[in-house]
Amino acid sequence: MTQHTVKAYGDELNHLTAEVARMGGLAEAQVVDSIVCITRRDVNLAQNIIAHDDKLDQMQIDIERKAIKLIALRQPVAQDLRRTVAAMKISSNLERCGDLAKNIAKRALVVSEAEPMTPLTRSIERMGHLVTGRLKDVLDAYTSSNVNRAVGVWWRDEEVDEHYNSLFRELLTYMMADPRTITSCAHLLFVAKNLERIGDHATNIAEIIHFELTGEDMITHRPKHSDIES
Amino acid sequence: MTQHTVKAYGDELNHLTAEVARMGGLAEAQVVDSIVCITRRDVNLAQNIIAHDDKLDQMQIDIERKAIKLIALRQPVAQDLRRTVAAMKISSNLERCGDLAKNIAKRALVVSEAEPMTPLTRSIERMGHLVTGRLKDVLDAYTSSNVNRAVGVWWRDEEVDEHYNSLFRELLTYMMADPRTITSCAHLLFVAKNLERIGDHATNIAEIIHFELTGEDMITHRPKHSDIES
Repeated sequence: MTQHTVKAYGDELNHLTAEVARMGGLAEAQVVDSIVCITRRDVNLAQNIIAHDDKLDQMQIDIERKAIKLIALRQPVAQDLRRTVAAMKISSNLERCGDLAKNIAKRALVVSEAEPMTPLTRSIERMGHLVTGRLKDVLDAYTSSNVNRAVGVWWRDEEVDEHYNSLFRELLTYMMADPRTITSCAHLLFVAKNLERIGDHATNIAEIIHFELTGEDMITHRPKHSDIES
Repeated sequence: MTQHTVKAYGDELNHLTAEVARMGGLAEAQVVDSIVCITRRDVNLAQNIIAHDDKLDQMQIDIERKAIKLIALRQPVAQDLRRTVAAMKISSNLERCGDLAKNIAKRALVVSEAEPMTPLTRSIERMGHLVTGRLKDVLDAYTSSNVNRAVGVWWRDEEVDEHYNSLFRELLTYMMADPRTITSCAHLLFVAKNLERIGDHATNIAEIIHFELTGEDMITHRPKHSDIES
């Protein structure tokens, strides 16, 4: 390749990584806002989140197409190839986080029409902070190519499961004590499940970063505490 | 490329497609069996499903690596490129269907320890038949490169939403009438949601097939009936 081509290729790869980082920031904001909708019963914010989701879908499509084009035209090898594939896979995970945030926002619209259930929404808020913290950490690990930070996120994923299991039991107890709350609590059950899944996506992104930077898989079979009970 | 290389490349592409089809058959069987676990309270079958999920994860990893290698080494263009990307994306969707089937099997283990709730599991069975039928149809469309069949699956996705909304209301009514059933019903709520998501994956696969065969996106914004209520 000529020097000009090498520079253009390096620029393309950096540009791709930057787009993923930008998409990460938007996805993170959507998740943070979706929890605010639940805790503050903010209907306008919920509508905004729902409206912004299309942008994340489009970014994912663009990143994927650019990555495919880059692989086909530049035939990257080794870490450059891994970096390009990582961009595609991370953008898919981020697009799913956006969908989950949108779903939380939609449920916030329903739940805000019923009586507040403050102990429950506080628990959701705590779980939400934990999950958005993990998403932020893993996106920081991505932009700074910091494999240790990624591994740190991966190791701490049991905390999310513990919050989820606890919330599941709390919601069921609430429903059994007052059957008039069953519909609202069912929606909050799905909100909690969505947060757990966003936590899983942060873990997936950590694994992808690890593979990109080291060429090796992490151990993939770790017992998940949420498996049987909830 | 030499004639030998062209033949080798064509073989590789056919081999990749065949692996996706094989993975589709396994994923479909996992989903079908997971519904049987619920309706027949079959604990052994549930354990089998859980044990087989690793195979699907491994197939997805293999397909992805072969596809990336093919793109980097052969630099496919136009429909060959779309076909290779489609293989990767369909295998991701199938791996997710397998995870959802495993999750249904795990919930079947919990639910089979409680009292049977036959009206509810019959509704789940009906929704299950609809969803596995869609998965079968879309996998047939893939193996026969039949774009009309794929479009047919895509158009009919509202049926799944209708079943889901109806099941959601049925489960909530059951819970409100008898709060002792709340825990079991919460698990069935997630089973229904998992089936809805498997239905969404069938729709995604239909879109991927359409793009592979025609080079054009389907209309992506169709109102989804399940959005607000459940």
